Amino acid sequence: MQFFPAPVENLIDHFARLPGIGRKTAQRLAFHILSLPEEEAKSFAEALTKAKKEIKFCRNCQNLAVEELCSICTAKGRDTSTICVVSGPKDVAAIERTYEYRGLYHVLHGVISPMNHVSPDDIRIKELLARVNTGTIKEVIMATNPDTEGEATALYISRLLNPFDIKVTRLAYGIPMGSHLEFTDEITLGRALEGRREI
Amino acid sequence: MQFFPAPVENLIDHFARLPGIGRKTAQRLAFHILSLPEEEAKSFAEALTKAKKEIKFCRNCQNLAVEELCSICTAKGRDTSTICVVSGPKDVAAIERTYEYRGLYHVLHGVISPMNHVSPDDIRIKELLARVNTGTIKEVIMATNPDTEGEATALYISRLLNPFDIKVTRLAYGIPMGSHLEFTDEITLGRALEGRREI
Repeated sequence: MQFFPAPVENLIDHFARLPGIGRKTAQRLAFHILSLPEEEAKSFAEALTKAKKEIKFCRNCQNLAVEELCSICTAKGRDTSTICVVSGPKDVAAIERTYEYRGLYHVLHGVISPMNHVSPDDIRIKELLARVNTGTIKEVIMATNPDTEGEATALYISRLLNPFDIKVTRLAYGIPMGSHLEFTDEITLGRALEGRREI
Repeated sequence: MQFFPAPVENLIDHFARLPGIGRKTAQRLAFHILSLPEEEAKSFAEALTKAKKEIKFCRNCQNLAVEELCSICTAKGRDTSTICVVSGPKDVAAIERTYEYRGLYHVLHGVISPMNHVSPDDIRIKELLARVNTGTIKEVIMATNPDTEGEATALYISRLLNPFDIKVTRLAYGIPMGSHLEFTDEITLGRALEGRREI
């Protein structure tokens, strides 16, 4: 039984299909759209189709791009001999926000996960090997998430990179800044001890 | 500084403008859209513009409608002598879901709220008076929310309806079904006592 006119129910349905949006929230969002000026709703609709249509993957690093190459691969002054391997475009944004890294990236678009039927062939590992194969790369930084699947993926790729004469590194594990030893889980604390450095 | 291509940032911006959607959630939703098949994103975009374009207000009850009159006003077998006055279309849906009410509605589109600069002229009270003025209405049920503004609006309208020879009623206050006396606030409990009925 529908209690709203069909176009409204249809819009609610679309919102409710988004991850983490329940029926009540979807209803609230749909009514918000109805309260917007028409041009705003139109511009939202255009943003949806445009994002979907105009975004492709960078030919080099597989990051999101509007052109053939992404804005990082075409940027001047970046260290093209270093590749930071991440699982998704959001991780690229997270690392860029530090303003600490000046090398390039490689976006895998996923991690190896037998549980979810994601095999090494399903993520962009071949493309990474091809880049390393050109001989211009000196270091590959594995920056997948420090969970089981991210670790396994990092290990898997680092083995594939063994035959090449390059440095393969992994992000440091340790206590996050601003936290307390008291509340740090034992695995993280163990890794922090293991990775201790001279001051 | 933008870390995603412009079309993606633009889509994130649009999502982030929705009520209750923060930057992180907006990012998650935008990436979900990127992962959808193109037709799905297109159908979402169409749902947005269509809802905005096709929805108008019912000439009679001011509820959302696709035609001149809404589906309730044109439905057969409804009691056209009773009007239930609510503040918004969501309240119509809430009451319809009970399947207990067979009369018509009147949607005010707001409540009187001097704090938010909403005066009686800003909501659809005139339209209600015009309907009552036709002389076919026997009862008006005030079903605005039981908060300060909803109460004040109900009282204001009931006074305007005084000169007419009709019954003006208000929804019953009391303990919600399934709750505990122990946890019911004292105002609700006081109202429940006041409105007690013989079994």
